[in-house]
Amino acid sequence: MKLLRYGPAGAEKPGLLDDQGQVRDLSAHVDDIAGDVLTPEGLARLAALNPADLPVVPGRPQDGLRLGACVGNVRKFIAIGLNYADHAAESGMAVPSEPVVFNKWTSCIVGPDDDVLVPKGSKKTDWEVELGVVIGAPAAGVSKADAMKHVAGYCVVNDVSEREWQLERTATWDKGKGFDTFGPIGPWMVTADEIPDPGKLKMWLEVDGKRYQDGSTETMVFGVTELVAYCSTFMTLLPGDIITTGTPPGVGMGQNPQVYLKGGEVMRLGIEGLGEQTQKVGNA
Amino acid sequence: MKLLRYGPAGAEKPGLLDDQGQVRDLSAHVDDIAGDVLTPEGLARLAALNPADLPVVPGRPQDGLRLGACVGNVRKFIAIGLNYADHAAESGMAVPSEPVVFNKWTSCIVGPDDDVLVPKGSKKTDWEVELGVVIGAPAAGVSKADAMKHVAGYCVVNDVSEREWQLERTATWDKGKGFDTFGPIGPWMVTADEIPDPGKLKMWLEVDGKRYQDGSTETMVFGVTELVAYCSTFMTLLPGDIITTGTPPGVGMGQNPQVYLKGGEVMRLGIEGLGEQTQKVGNA
Repeated sequence: MKLLRYGPAGAEKPGLLDDQGQVRDLSAHVDDIAGDVLTPEGLARLAALNPADLPVVPGRPQDGLRLGACVGNVRKFIAIGLNYADHAAESGMAVPSEPVVFNKWTSCIVGPDDDVLVPKGSKKTDWEVELGVVIGAPAAGVSKADAMKHVAGYCVVNDVSEREWQLERTATWDKGKGFDTFGPIGPWMVTADEIPDPGKLKMWLEVDGKRYQDGSTETMVFGVTELVAYCSTFMTLLPGDIITTGTPPGVGMGQNPQVYLKGGEVMRLGIEGLGEQTQKVGNA
Repeated sequence: MKLLRYGPAGAEKPGLLDDQGQVRDLSAHVDDIAGDVLTPEGLARLAALNPADLPVVPGRPQDGLRLGACVGNVRKFIAIGLNYADHAAESGMAVPSEPVVFNKWTSCIVGPDDDVLVPKGSKKTDWEVELGVVIGAPAAGVSKADAMKHVAGYCVVNDVSEREWQLERTATWDKGKGFDTFGPIGPWMVTADEIPDPGKLKMWLEVDGKRYQDGSTETMVFGVTELVAYCSTFMTLLPGDIITTGTPPGVGMGQNPQVYLKGGEVMRLGIEGLGEQTQKVGNA
């Protein structure tokens, strides 16, 4: 299934994308694509529905129907740093011996095609296409072998980053990762059953038509099962929590000379099987 | 007002502590002590009630009535590091030139007197009594002069920390700060009108009756208004977000030799005017 949330920001309704690319409304069955709806039991209930029986939502995403973040009420937006060896190199940092875990403040979450804002005074706002892992069943101290039982599905994430705030402003990365609009999520969450190998997905990102990132999850240092198991040792992962798993090479900071986002530009990014995002860049 | 949440974990009801130390039920007026209830308008509505007209909840906190975290649905649990010069020194770190911002995963939040669990295999679980600032009105890019308009109130926080995970496990602090039970909050949120100067509050923490921390918010490097303004440049602060503002000297890591928590011990901590917490230490 491709689960999504559509409608005005803050008033999104739950839906799914059918095989014809139409949005079907799920409001009669669930309140939101969030929390317990994402557990194995919740997803099984949705999977038992016949999409053809669900009301068609007028308009399509490509024709202007707004999509919100594909998961609502995200309580933890966990991010993994330097998880592609080539990206670590372009960042001038070593490949870590174990995953680097940081935080994206949940108030940064927006829809996949909402505007991304360059903060006032920022000179180093950057992009990062990433595979997002959506947690289904709660996970505390789970093994790598059991990790997949706790994954509801996958989505595209743009881990927008302010590099000066992240790297030049004392001690932790969290200042530079969670400004409002720095977390586009979607267009939809594809349930795990439809993605047999999350470690073999092509991914790409363009700014104004120029392709900067052109990679694959194949070159991740730590894979999905390892990341879920690892994070679950430091906290209980809850339904609807998202782990965004790091970015391949090609970020703005890695260019020579460096390239950063400016108001008026357009980002397009996507991951094989998970859909695409398009964001206009604005100024906060 | 002293606002609180009482009852079983996950099913807390809103209440307030009256001048006689009795809990009064607010369920008829608000769903929770959370979100918009904490805005100036929301608090004004509660302040207009006469506590004597509210139902008395049987039992008292000191007699076993469980209190939950005093704020529900905390979306961001923002923490400030090294914000007391003496604590930076005992940690072997420099006083930062600007606030160090890190994250406590919201799933770590528990009631003020709930058990704190030492994670499996942990050898360095530590305590930190801290002044928590609860956000009222949304705050984005606010000035120091305006910051207080965005503060709903204050509470005691124990910023429980696993030092190995925080400091010896690559790049950021977030691994060591958000294990389940690492965020006792309460017993109540005292509204800002009752705390004329949050920069002059005595604070203390004892383990098994031995006083390890005995400080005052007077020695904070960055004060409440500065921290609210500062954090609001990196993200929009929302009603119910909590900023925990750093700890004075006397943590376990700062002892010689170092002292860490063990199952069976009891922590007691408090801040002048904001009440006390008592936690049994258990093993996860």
